[in-house]
Amino acid sequence: MNSIAPAQLIENLSWRYATKQFDPARKIAAEHWKTLEEAMTLAPSSYGLQPWAFVVVTDPKVREKLRAVSWNQPQITDASHLVVFCAKTNLGRADVDRYIDRIVEVRGVPRDALAGFRDMMLGTVEASGANHLHWNQRQVYIALGFFLSAAAMLGIDACPMEGFDAAKYNEILGLSGQGLSATVLATAGYRSPGDSYASLKKVRFDASDVIKRV
Amino acid sequence: MNSIAPAQLIENLSWRYATKQFDPARKIAAEHWKTLEEAMTLAPSSYGLQPWAFVVVTDPKVREKLRAVSWNQPQITDASHLVVFCAKTNLGRADVDRYIDRIVEVRGVPRDALAGFRDMMLGTVEASGANHLHWNQRQVYIALGFFLSAAAMLGIDACPMEGFDAAKYNEILGLSGQGLSATVLATAGYRSPGDSYASLKKVRFDASDVIKRV
Repeated sequence: MNSIAPAQLIENLSWRYATKQFDPARKIAAEHWKTLEEAMTLAPSSYGLQPWAFVVVTDPKVREKLRAVSWNQPQITDASHLVVFCAKTNLGRADVDRYIDRIVEVRGVPRDALAGFRDMMLGTVEASGANHLHWNQRQVYIALGFFLSAAAMLGIDACPMEGFDAAKYNEILGLSGQGLSATVLATAGYRSPGDSYASLKKVRFDASDVIKRV
Repeated sequence: MNSIAPAQLIENLSWRYATKQFDPARKIAAEHWKTLEEAMTLAPSSYGLQPWAFVVVTDPKVREKLRAVSWNQPQITDASHLVVFCAKTNLGRADVDRYIDRIVEVRGVPRDALAGFRDMMLGTVEASGANHLHWNQRQVYIALGFFLSAAAMLGIDACPMEGFDAAKYNEILGLSGQGLSATVLATAGYRSPGDSYASLKKVRFDASDVIKRV
């Protein structure tokens, strides 16, 4: 496995910023988009349960509707791509069993060998009760982190977005009927040369305020 | 800005796995560790508020104590490094003002020019009420995602971990008094040659089950 140099990693993550104006004429090439989709799905999650779905919205009419319930932010329609990161709203036994089935399929292990793991997951899922949506949403944010850092590594601009009406997204995209809830968005594409935010210095607290050592 | 090839990104993210056995003799070199710390701090957060702290635990005696309240999982003591990702528990006006101060300092803009942005943040923080801990915790998971993908890019093994007693962590590390709550962990270092999990196929649902297109 090839690793990259520390300086390049920091260069790419520093280059990244929450893009406010995308160039509507520039589209992400198919190979790059496929890679971003793969990066999201490669994100880890608790137990590996992947309590999520990623809705890629390309239909311009739907994106217009979504923009109207996203404080009219232009990224929703102008970015090359829009992904709605969704959490599962009723994670339960069926999801655990679907996951166990998938392990059996991918690794070729006998189902019985996974009985203990299955029980452990069921215990956690059932104990989490009404809180499991929060748990799932946290996992979704790992996938968001993977998506954003992958974009930075590939030289693709992106903007994570929480400013939208989740209930309206669920309605417009028919998510509730699928047991999903819109949690956070990412738009991706290429910055407009006119986006003045691109040249602003990144604001981070001093490392000594954020990193504590014990 | 140099970008990397899609194939390399996927190679690195596929190489990553939740390491179960670290080689206790192998330590992450200082330059690499510094880079991982920087990657965490470069993670984006809502409004850029960074409602988090990262506690790097190196004291072996403290790590022994933490292992005892982490289901005795060996990564806690055997990995080269342990980071406790914490969320702020009482995010409020003081945090918003500290952030505004920092923007003024880094960007050299007049404080008055940020009044609207400050009001917007205060509105959100105050409206979120008791839910703001969930919000902060979700942001923390973006930083976790950045940390884990950065480690993969650098060829460093890591394991995200939720199996620990957060209340005990808060007590042992004195976090509550600092307005922090342990949210999720990452251990990092180098896999032991004996870790059989390293050779297991990665289990992900088929992309068609996870990615929806509208």
